[in-house]
Amino acid sequence: MPALINRSWRLVARPEGAFKPEDFAWAEDAVPDDLADGQVLVRQIYLSLDPTSRGWANPTATYLPTIPLGSVMRGFGLGVVEASRDPALRPGDLVQGMLGWQTYAVIDGEAVSRFERDPHVPLDAYLAVLGHIGATAYFGLLEIGRPKAGETLVVSGAAGAVGSLVGQIGKIVGCRVVGVAGSDEKCRWLTEDLGFDAALNYKREPVLSRLRRLCPSGIDVHFENVGGEILDAALAFINQRARIVLCGLISQYNEFVPPPGPRFLGNVLIRRARIEGFIVLDYRDRFAEAFAPLARWMAEGRLRYRADIVEGLEQAPIAVNRLFTGGNIGKLLVRVSDDPGASR
Amino acid sequence: MPALINRSWRLVARPEGAFKPEDFAWAEDAVPDDLADGQVLVRQIYLSLDPTSRGWANPTATYLPTIPLGSVMRGFGLGVVEASRDPALRPGDLVQGMLGWQTYAVIDGEAVSRFERDPHVPLDAYLAVLGHIGATAYFGLLEIGRPKAGETLVVSGAAGAVGSLVGQIGKIVGCRVVGVAGSDEKCRWLTEDLGFDAALNYKREPVLSRLRRLCPSGIDVHFENVGGEILDAALAFINQRARIVLCGLISQYNEFVPPPGPRFLGNVLIRRARIEGFIVLDYRDRFAEAFAPLARWMAEGRLRYRADIVEGLEQAPIAVNRLFTGGNIGKLLVRVSDDPGASR
Repeated sequence: MPALINRSWRLVARPEGAFKPEDFAWAEDAVPDDLADGQVLVRQIYLSLDPTSRGWANPTATYLPTIPLGSVMRGFGLGVVEASRDPALRPGDLVQGMLGWQTYAVIDGEAVSRFERDPHVPLDAYLAVLGHIGATAYFGLLEIGRPKAGETLVVSGAAGAVGSLVGQIGKIVGCRVVGVAGSDEKCRWLTEDLGFDAALNYKREPVLSRLRRLCPSGIDVHFENVGGEILDAALAFINQRARIVLCGLISQYNEFVPPPGPRFLGNVLIRRARIEGFIVLDYRDRFAEAFAPLARWMAEGRLRYRADIVEGLEQAPIAVNRLFTGGNIGKLLVRVSDDPGASR
Repeated sequence: MPALINRSWRLVARPEGAFKPEDFAWAEDAVPDDLADGQVLVRQIYLSLDPTSRGWANPTATYLPTIPLGSVMRGFGLGVVEASRDPALRPGDLVQGMLGWQTYAVIDGEAVSRFERDPHVPLDAYLAVLGHIGATAYFGLLEIGRPKAGETLVVSGAAGAVGSLVGQIGKIVGCRVVGVAGSDEKCRWLTEDLGFDAALNYKREPVLSRLRRLCPSGIDVHFENVGGEILDAALAFINQRARIVLCGLISQYNEFVPPPGPRFLGNVLIRRARIEGFIVLDYRDRFAEAFAPLARWMAEGRLRYRADIVEGLEQAPIAVNRLFTGGNIGKLLVRVSDDPGASR
């Protein structure tokens, strides 16, 4: 077998503000000929670009260690096993895991999750729904937000990968669902295609007054992906015992100094509300619990997703900023290599 | 019996910023001759002045309805039953409840709590510890904060009525306790008399750097009575799964427009922390659960309190602002009338 070449993006500088192309360096290296015991070689098919990766690049640890400068940029992805020294995995198996911004990952078999492909489910759905994104929406909403039928759920970043699922799961459990997104096109997608009860374009409409109008019975669950003005407005209208799921604060990931927080914290006090941080990795052992209902809802047509697919690993450093500028709708993915199961 | 005169302070204007004497009007009215079925006449002995009363005076409801202009200012107090048409209460009984800023309250017997006086316990302790204040510290810390032995507890407003008890209960359950207060005298009281491990004078010391130094293992439970800079600093150093009890936000009660919230909300996310609002009235049915251990700890000398007693109901409108200016240490009370059990 001729030596395989791994192409990768390495993080070479700590970003100041947004990711810049100069923060990454392209590398081409031979894939090692032999694997250590327990390792597998995975060819990546789809790389997931996620807002949380901005925090990983900072010099201080977040919920994961910082990425050392010079090493391959961290990223979640989906791929196919090409070689294995893990008895639980065979060539041809499909897996998900932290494959990184590269074409080939040499990784412990225990660090990836194998999945069975349903021929009726497109491969990108395994990253957009039946993976970390779906688990985030499912556990974040149901375990931290605990919505009840008849309650009002507000979702920020509602046209994003997680938010779009959260709102639909909210509808499935019987909530009135209001999405907050950054364009009229996104808002139309939420209400016309995904069944949200209402949507608010925060870039065009006055957030406080509009949110009050759209939530005449107040807010019982707020699922926060953005932070800033939207969280502030949501806290203004929370009901007693409201639950605020802090899943993302994308509006401040590029800020060097943390911006001021929400003004209406007094309402958290007088209404005995709860703001709780959520990281999906804590639920790693329970992902299967989420995937069964998520797959069923997809098959029933009750849960839709949209993948925004960028062609080629070369594009990753540019494409990643679309997460922060509002440039994508749904799940942002990079197609790194061909789907072995796709008919051509 | 000659007609009794009820002296009272009525709220006659919505305060702008701090309470001002002109927001209240003094009134003297005859106490009604006859009680309705179920009512009692209570002569107030001690009136409790509490920061939360500032919110009650606003035009919009908080966790209680707003106080209508022209009516007696709401306030918690302790008194003696003088007449009763409630079969469960007899003249001479001691009770606590929302007696208001007045000398005599005509009130439903069901709205007050009778208590047995322990001859070894000073009467003011029934407001400073064995009443709503003790219940706030007890349930707020133990049920919302859930401290474990060995954890680090930070308390703001630590020399106040609630904070001083919270810190001592924290020591009893085995925490390292750091108090934040506004003068060196208060800090000395916390460390020298109450057994706090450390105290920080936020008016003199740099809060962020000093708090980091005093909490080398981070913060597991933060009990917030103040808000603003102190909450901000605490969030900077919270540990994973930290619990932030939002019990008071006294720094902003006099603000017309809510000030910006804490900057370090991102830490709540990545450290899966929880900020939860707490109102002691939710635990009304369980107060006795708190009073038994609180009384035992007092008897054992493990729980101390300090009462800051103002003489005469006339002083209430001036004295109440000492809560907001840092002018009191411990529980601020107004002596409204004489203790019937005091030896004279």
